[in-house]
Amino acid sequence: MTTILKNFWVLEGLDGAGTTTQLKKIDSALSRAGVNYMITAEPTDYETGKIIRRVLSGEIKVPQSTVARLFSADRDNHLYNSENGVIKNIESGKIVVSDRYFFSSLAYQSIGYDFESVMQLNSSFPYPEFVIYIDTPVKDCISRIDSRGEKKEIYEKYDYQLKVREGYEKCFSSLPEGCNLLRIDGNLSIDEIFEEINEKLIKNLT
Amino acid sequence: MTTILKNFWVLEGLDGAGTTTQLKKIDSALSRAGVNYMITAEPTDYETGKIIRRVLSGEIKVPQSTVARLFSADRDNHLYNSENGVIKNIESGKIVVSDRYFFSSLAYQSIGYDFESVMQLNSSFPYPEFVIYIDTPVKDCISRIDSRGEKKEIYEKYDYQLKVREGYEKCFSSLPEGCNLLRIDGNLSIDEIFEEINEKLIKNLT
Repeated sequence: MTTILKNFWVLEGLDGAGTTTQLKKIDSALSRAGVNYMITAEPTDYETGKIIRRVLSGEIKVPQSTVARLFSADRDNHLYNSENGVIKNIESGKIVVSDRYFFSSLAYQSIGYDFESVMQLNSSFPYPEFVIYIDTPVKDCISRIDSRGEKKEIYEKYDYQLKVREGYEKCFSSLPEGCNLLRIDGNLSIDEIFEEINEKLIKNLT
Repeated sequence: MTTILKNFWVLEGLDGAGTTTQLKKIDSALSRAGVNYMITAEPTDYETGKIIRRVLSGEIKVPQSTVARLFSADRDNHLYNSENGVIKNIESGKIVVSDRYFFSSLAYQSIGYDFESVMQLNSSFPYPEFVIYIDTPVKDCISRIDSRGEKKEIYEKYDYQLKVREGYEKCFSSLPEGCNLLRIDGNLSIDEIFEEINEKLIKNLT
């Protein structure tokens, strides 16, 4: 059975799409509006998230299938942690907004592993009420990543991000009822993107 | 499809059943026999295993469902690690003997989570060729654990170990063809238990 977690919003997008920038703007807006909310992210700041950061930085080497399982463990902890988990916060009346959720796993980890296996690892997790997807053309994400000074060859990055984008589209083609996709044109400016989020999600709250 | 990993042996049993003691004896015997082998254990000594030890010691608090997922990540790394994984060692011609494998997850983590969910997390892993199960009565395991000076109330421990034992029996009732159960009476002495393992598995190798 598919569960929808009401009042749970997640931001998704390619590398360089600006999910973290938008999360900060959502944070400020919810704060100004006096809404009871929590801002969070995956990987988490728990120990289960810290080990993932060490894997992503290259400090720890594990197979891609292990990475997918570590993300599923961290997500489980993120949701169900008894001290400060997403569900505990939602039950206490908060809106919870996360920078990335299982759609990122399906889009990113499917590349080195396979979509069905990653899907199976994440199949018991609830869907969010809203997925805010910043839909940025691959070439624009690449030039933003380039400006950060990363090392990979441009064609590698292009190919990789193209696969991530395909993974996202595969997820979004079969969202269950009650899980709403807010797809925003990533060619818009930071402020225009935020204005769409504000218009569709935040304004109605007050 | 169920895969059997030839030349992969695993030791299983309740807490206090003596799997680690028998692993040491197997280690010595295989060494004396000049067999090409590797001794290993779960949780592993990789970072994916170290985080589990920190959870089991109580240093890190995570939900039971997260523990089950962390074990599945560590097992995945144990099997598929490209530097020293079980499969790499078997492919190089070794017999690999592990102190515990996914049967432990099914027996132990099912208690705080549920059997079907733990089964699903472990369903893609190969079965070993031999499961050496040291079948010790719960009351004997309890008195051995007691002699280690652990703190729990005796009835809690008895109840817990009884559930672990039921979990093992549930696993063993549906082993696939090619995965052989060597069930050894845990009332036998350490040397008698080892002699059974030697007789059934080690003697034939030389």
